[in-house]
Amino acid sequence: MTVTPVEPPYPARDPRPPSARVAMIGAGQLARMTHQAAISLHVELRVLTDELDAPAVRAGATPVLGSPDAPGDLAALADGCDVVTFDHELVAPALLAQLAERATVRPSPHAKLLAQDKLHARRTLADARVAVPAFADVAGAADVEAFAAEHGWPVVIKARSGGYDGRGVWVVDNPDAADEICERADAAGLRLLVEALVDIRLELAVLVARTASGATTAYPVLQTHQHDGICLDVVAPAAVPPQQAAEATRLAIELANGLGVTGLLAVELFVTPTGLLVNELALRPHNSGHLTIDACPTSQFEQHLRALLDWPLGDTQLLAPAAAMVNVLGPADGSDPTRRLARALAVPQARMHLYAKTPRPGRKLGHVTALGATPDEALDLARTAAAELVNP
Amino acid sequence: MTVTPVEPPYPARDPRPPSARVAMIGAGQLARMTHQAAISLHVELRVLTDELDAPAVRAGATPVLGSPDAPGDLAALADGCDVVTFDHELVAPALLAQLAERATVRPSPHAKLLAQDKLHARRTLADARVAVPAFADVAGAADVEAFAAEHGWPVVIKARSGGYDGRGVWVVDNPDAADEICERADAAGLRLLVEALVDIRLELAVLVARTASGATTAYPVLQTHQHDGICLDVVAPAAVPPQQAAEATRLAIELANGLGVTGLLAVELFVTPTGLLVNELALRPHNSGHLTIDACPTSQFEQHLRALLDWPLGDTQLLAPAAAMVNVLGPADGSDPTRRLARALAVPQARMHLYAKTPRPGRKLGHVTALGATPDEALDLARTAAAELVNP
Repeated sequence: MTVTPVEPPYPARDPRPPSARVAMIGAGQLARMTHQAAISLHVELRVLTDELDAPAVRAGATPVLGSPDAPGDLAALADGCDVVTFDHELVAPALLAQLAERATVRPSPHAKLLAQDKLHARRTLADARVAVPAFADVAGAADVEAFAAEHGWPVVIKARSGGYDGRGVWVVDNPDAADEICERADAAGLRLLVEALVDIRLELAVLVARTASGATTAYPVLQTHQHDGICLDVVAPAAVPPQQAAEATRLAIELANGLGVTGLLAVELFVTPTGLLVNELALRPHNSGHLTIDACPTSQFEQHLRALLDWPLGDTQLLAPAAAMVNVLGPADGSDPTRRLARALAVPQARMHLYAKTPRPGRKLGHVTALGATPDEALDLARTAAAELVNP
Repeated sequence: MTVTPVEPPYPARDPRPPSARVAMIGAGQLARMTHQAAISLHVELRVLTDELDAPAVRAGATPVLGSPDAPGDLAALADGCDVVTFDHELVAPALLAQLAERATVRPSPHAKLLAQDKLHARRTLADARVAVPAFADVAGAADVEAFAAEHGWPVVIKARSGGYDGRGVWVVDNPDAADEICERADAAGLRLLVEALVDIRLELAVLVARTASGATTAYPVLQTHQHDGICLDVVAPAAVPPQQAAEATRLAIELANGLGVTGLLAVELFVTPTGLLVNELALRPHNSGHLTIDACPTSQFEQHLRALLDWPLGDTQLLAPAAAMVNVLGPADGSDPTRRLARALAVPQARMHLYAKTPRPGRKLGHVTALGATPDEALDLARTAAAELVNP
């Protein structure tokens, strides 16, 4: 597709104006799937991107060429839009605050900071007496050693911001290893925090949408399965007792309200022998919620749009007893799973979602969903189809 | 969105080529929803349109500017695509036959003629001993009178081609009225056929997808509700005994195979006191099947793409005991239902689908789907939300 970026100003001269114009910072797979959902609602999605071949642009979102580091580009993106929101976290809080003076930014820069700065998030949650892993700020290696002296080795060192899919997280079990990471981080200008290594029995995610007016709706509790910090698969409902699922849901809704989130909030939780701990927060559609496209009447992408635009929220119940999602990670040989699509479609119950991204080993290139009578049945179906995409 | 049409030739220089390139003649709501489905499969949809603001182009399909009456435009559309298919019937069979010599046209021009020429369809079905309403060719008013003498007044006069949404269909109960229609048709160069007025108890539609290799999958039998020839709503499953549903399904699959259809075949059926009669055939996604987007694992739009590309067909079972779809017709005041979207979203179970079309009274501008425990429950939900869109 040949696409010409829109140039500001954006006149509302269209005889058939959309129901709303939404601007998104970023044009990756989250923006791509948001655009797909936006079509049904006749919402125009405009995306800020540095390449016209980005996943969301290839799907049909309107591109604004630019960088999230350039105030002028952010302003051009927002111009004429009802609301500005996010495909990712990689925009400087100060620029967001500046943008928020001339445009409606949702979630607010203040709330978004919870997903941008892990130390800020930990402190905010701890101040609100929400259970989180033990943590401390790290100014230098001595802070790690002091923390380990209190909580024991190994510890988890994390970059305060910029990390994703396992990047920016290191489990270290001795002072030398901690020294090395602190030195490298210092050289790279990366700020760190340290956390206790938690005895994780299960990982959960709760997605809550909250409208600008304060209405909230949660999705069924999701169970996520990570390896090396990358989400491999997700099932719903999670294998936890009903009262723990209810506790997780209540907590996520309280957080959405307490933190003043507008749009989607994904609360990642650890199930530990002593109960639930909140891990990280994401204030946008989340990988754990991709199965909602096929498994719920309202997808997380549509729900995010509704919440941002202060429209009524949609139904979130599961359409089947269980659902599963398997991420399609780039195979080691660098080949493109798209080439093997027909093979994967031979699993008639599986739903394919390809992101039109350049293949790289380990990169998220798509996902597969399936419904089933049980989480295991759904997971088996999705895994079988995903394997056909990934295996040469 | 500012869009630049692609100019031929279309080089395959993309580092991330799509899984397939599909060309569609037309860029209306069917093309729009096909594009929405194509995103998940990383299929590129290219559409032939005379306006860059067409519903499918606004959703992100790649536009090729041109007319279905221009052989050069059809060739430009097809260039570099794996398959050419249809959003509508309005392309001359001779041009299609010519296009099929240089591109893969699916369904074949020969099969497509069944949806383009109602007399041809009636004759083909009658020759195959499929039950259809009594019919006759009309060269002049005398033919209508002769037909009525045998079958009684009133009779149904139809345009052989070009009619849709009730246009090109006239129920007449006397020779003078027949005379007038024949004269007007003659002046307009319209060819006619005449049919017996059937005692219709219910109207059904069966959607079958057939791949180029001959695999077939049918959707649950749909029950359609028309007024003045326009489809108002659809429910699934249809209120017919299981053996009649099975008979309708068997018939539709036999027709898809017997007629050599590739892609979707929609078979419209009348339930009469003496059994099933086949009304019309559509060889493309069909209004009756819009509920499959929300009610089935595989939508009719994705299924059409799979069938055209000779990929395995997807699962077609209902995700709920019942589903309903209500068309959103342009209100009498000419206002745009898009403006009332937020009001309609207050029905959390309803799924909105807006087409980004210029509002005109009676024009199909969108549809609303809902699932339910019964067809009536689903229909009530969808009607409630659709009324919010339509009522001022």
